[in-house]
This record gives sequence, C-alpha cells and structure tokens, in this order.
Amino acid sequence: MIKLAIIGTGNVAFHVAKAFQNSENIHLEAVAGRSPEKLEVFSTIPHRITDLKHLPQVDIVVIAVSDAAIAEVSRQLSGYTGLIVHTSGSSSMQVLEPHKHHGVFYPLQTFSKYSELNYREIPFCIEAKLEADFQTLEDLTSALGATSYSVNSDQRAALHLAAVFANNFGNHILTEAQQICEERKVSFELLKPLMEETIRKAFSIGPEAAQTGPAKRRDTSTIEKQLNALHDPEQKKLYTSLTEALLKHYER
Amino acid sequence: MIKLAIIGTGNVAFHVAKAFQNSENIHLEAVAGRSPEKLEVFSTIPHRITDLKHLPQVDIVVIAVSDAAIAEVSRQLSGYTGLIVHTSGSSSMQVLEPHKHHGVFYPLQTFSKYSELNYREIPFCIEAKLEADFQTLEDLTSALGATSYSVNSDQRAALHLAAVFANNFGNHILTEAQQICEERKVSFELLKPLMEETIRKAFSIGPEAAQTGPAKRRDTSTIEKQLNALHDPEQKKLYTSLTEALLKHYER
Repeated sequence: MIKLAIIGTGNVAFHVAKAFQNSENIHLEAVAGRSPEKLEVFSTIPHRITDLKHLPQVDIVVIAVSDAAIAEVSRQLSGYTGLIVHTSGSSSMQVLEPHKHHGVFYPLQTFSKYSELNYREIPFCIEAKLEADFQTLEDLTSALGATSYSVNSDQRAALHLAAVFANNFGNHILTEAQQICEERKVSFELLKPLMEETIRKAFSIGPEAAQTGPAKRRDTSTIEKQLNALHDPEQKKLYTSLTEALLKHYER
Repeated sequence: MIKLAIIGTGNVAFHVAKAFQNSENIHLEAVAGRSPEKLEVFSTIPHRITDLKHLPQVDIVVIAVSDAAIAEVSRQLSGYTGLIVHTSGSSSMQVLEPHKHHGVFYPLQTFSKYSELNYREIPFCIEAKLEADFQTLEDLTSALGATSYSVNSDQRAALHLAAVFANNFGNHILTEAQQICEERKVSFELLKPLMEETIRKAFSIGPEAAQTGPAKRRDTSTIEKQLNALHDPEQKKLYTSLTEALLKHYER
C-alpha cells in the first residue's frame, strides 16, 4: 500500500486524486490547497488541509500546482523527509533539489474537470534523483494500471512543447474550423470521422506521409479561392501562416 | 443494382472504387483514366478505359479527378445522358450544369492509397440538381453502408475549408510536434493518447471549452520559455502565430 498526499486543487490534482482513489494499492491520505471551497470536491479523502504544516506522514507527496508555485510549495515542505514529486511538463526536476528524495510524475494528457479519462491509456513520464525512488514511481504508475516512461527533464520539456503544438494549437484550429462551419450552418460534427482518421494516420504512417491538401500539392488556385472565402481577418492570418509553413516544409 | 463508372485514378477514385466493389448492390462497370499504368490497380473491374468514348452505359458516372480537370472531363461526356456527379469538396455543382442529370457525391475524409478505411464512418455530402437524382445518390450512399447529408455547394465549400484547417493544418502541426520529439530523442508515440483525447473532447464539449495551455491562461513566462527552447525559425514563427491567435481569441 502506497500512502499519498496531493498538494493542489486544479484539474491535474482533481484527476490524479480520482485515479489514486480508484486504485486498490494506493491510499490517498490528504489533499492540500489554499482555498477551503476548492477542497470541498475532495470530501472522500481523510485529510483536507489548507496549511502544509498539518500534512500527515505519507510515502509520496505529489505537488500538482502551477509551475510558478512549485518552488514555494517545496520550501514549505522543508521538514518533510519522504519522496516529493511534481506533475509539471515544463518544470525541471531541479526545482525540488533541496529535498533528498525528489522526482517528477508527469501525466501526458489534457485534463478538464468534467471529462472522464481512461488512466490506463495515459503515459506517465517519470524521473527521480535516486534509483530507489524511480522504482517507487514505477510502482505508483503500475498501481494506476498505466504505463511509465523514463523521461529526463530536457526530454520532458520537449514533450510538453510538442504537446502544446499538438493539443493546444491543434485544438484552436478546430475552434476556427467550427466557426467556419457555423457561419454556413453546416454541422461541425461531420468533421469527427475525418479527425479520428487524421490522428490514426499520423500515428501509423507518420504525419509527413499523411499530409494532403492544397498547400502540400502546391495548388495555388484552391489556396487563393479559400483565402478569398475567409472573411475573419484572424482566420485569414492563420490560413496564410499555416499555408506558408506547409509550402516551405514541402518545397524540398 | 446500381451500375457505375468512375473517372479518375487518384486516391479518391481508388478508395471509392474499393468501397463500390465491396457493396452487393453496386456494380462497378468501368474505370477511366489517362494513364494505362495507373489503371492496372483496377484489374478486377470489367472495363478499364483510357478514352471516354468507350464508356459503357451506366446509371451514374462518378468524376473523381482534380478540381481543375472536372470541366474538361464533363465536356468529353457530352453524349452521356445519365447522372453525372463529381467528388470534389471545393468545386460547385454548377461546373456540371450542361448535363441534365448532375450532382455531387463528396466523401468528407482524407484518403491515402495505403490506408484502410471504414466506409461506414465516412459522411457523404450529397447534392443533386433534380430531386430524383438526389434519391439515387442517397441509395448509393446506403449501398456503401454510409450516411448521407444534404449539403449545398456553399456549405460544401465551407466544410472543405474547415477540413483544410482541421486535417491539413492539424496534421502539419503534428509534423512539427514529431520533429520536436525527435530532436530530444523522445518517442512521438507518447502523444497518441493525448491526441485521441483532444479529438474526443473537441467533439463532445466543443473545442472552445476544451482549450487549455499557456496561451489560453495567458502564462507569458511559459510562452517565453517555450519560444526560447525552439531553434528552428519556422517552428518559432508557427508558435508565435498560433499563440497570438489564441491570445487574441480569448482576450474577450
């Protein structure tokens, strides 16, 4: 049985807490947060604390707060001697350096409060200063039924950046696509099979081999027609930037 | 039994031909193309012709050629009196106007030669000049086990444009994500569950509600850190354009 505490009440904390609670081999002892209101959703967890001084003794403390707050939370845990990890993609492991036992437990996924997740399919990127702690993080991931990957801080930063492109930018492009559909009163839903196939193909034959469309085949007449069909200046700008990027990428 | 002929030997023709051949209620009589070599893959189809004069009598002729070539193919079919449709997203139905029976049969999907597709999940956007022909196109879609949607030429152009954003641009962003992963020797595969969840979320709660990331929360310190981590000038440009679009979109 691994005893745990989570610090943080945001989306990652919420989902990680839920996953821990569903595991038979993990006991989530405490959740800590600054706001008593935000702690209310964690009502089934024994200790809900607003002052880190009251943190019970556990095996692992999981810091799931914003990047900017990790160092400060770490300082407040100066008396704690167990393993401390953070869940950030872009913060290095070093930020927890003052602690003898420290590491990273980064779930590579997008978290929204009201979206159910299948934890078995989330890759956990783990890193630890000491080999024995790495083993503990592997056990923690297994207890969730998930798969762990050994990823160092540089690689994790790259993965997080790649995830910003893939998820954040990819999702925003879908926002624009939805707006285009709505203007012509045609259902955005019709694009769902296309997008499922886009992802399937990109991860089977690779995104370069999967690339199609007017910019890939340098079909300037369609590009011009589509640019003229766009009225929103922001959409025109985005269409131009991405078309130029595609033309440049495939000019070789 | 619907008798069909396809004109064209590209990816769309290839996949549509395959789907027709797998249907019990459709008989694909002929495929026409300019190049005898490209016709070779259609060896199981009775007539493979390079001259449209030899087109046998069928119920529907499906023109699956590049947008620029549709009008010319249509002219060559001046003697044909049955239903003629094209499969283009961005060409209007009007291009086939000289024919009494004409329409559009647009499969909203991305087609690569070596990628198997589940036709039941492809939305077919159909349009016809005459009501009876519309019915025929509905029957044709049903014969494939797929679902048809009544979509006019303006709406189809909007859908095609939305598809360029969603698929073409979305896929190119994955190409950049892959490059970022490769530079740090971390597996691009790790992003697959994230992307599956991205699509699932965008089509359940909507892409605006699903948006997360540094630009959405105006986290300028992470944005600056990530911009500094990018070395490729093209990636920097794309990161900047998309971050600016996001900041602008969510400033309201």
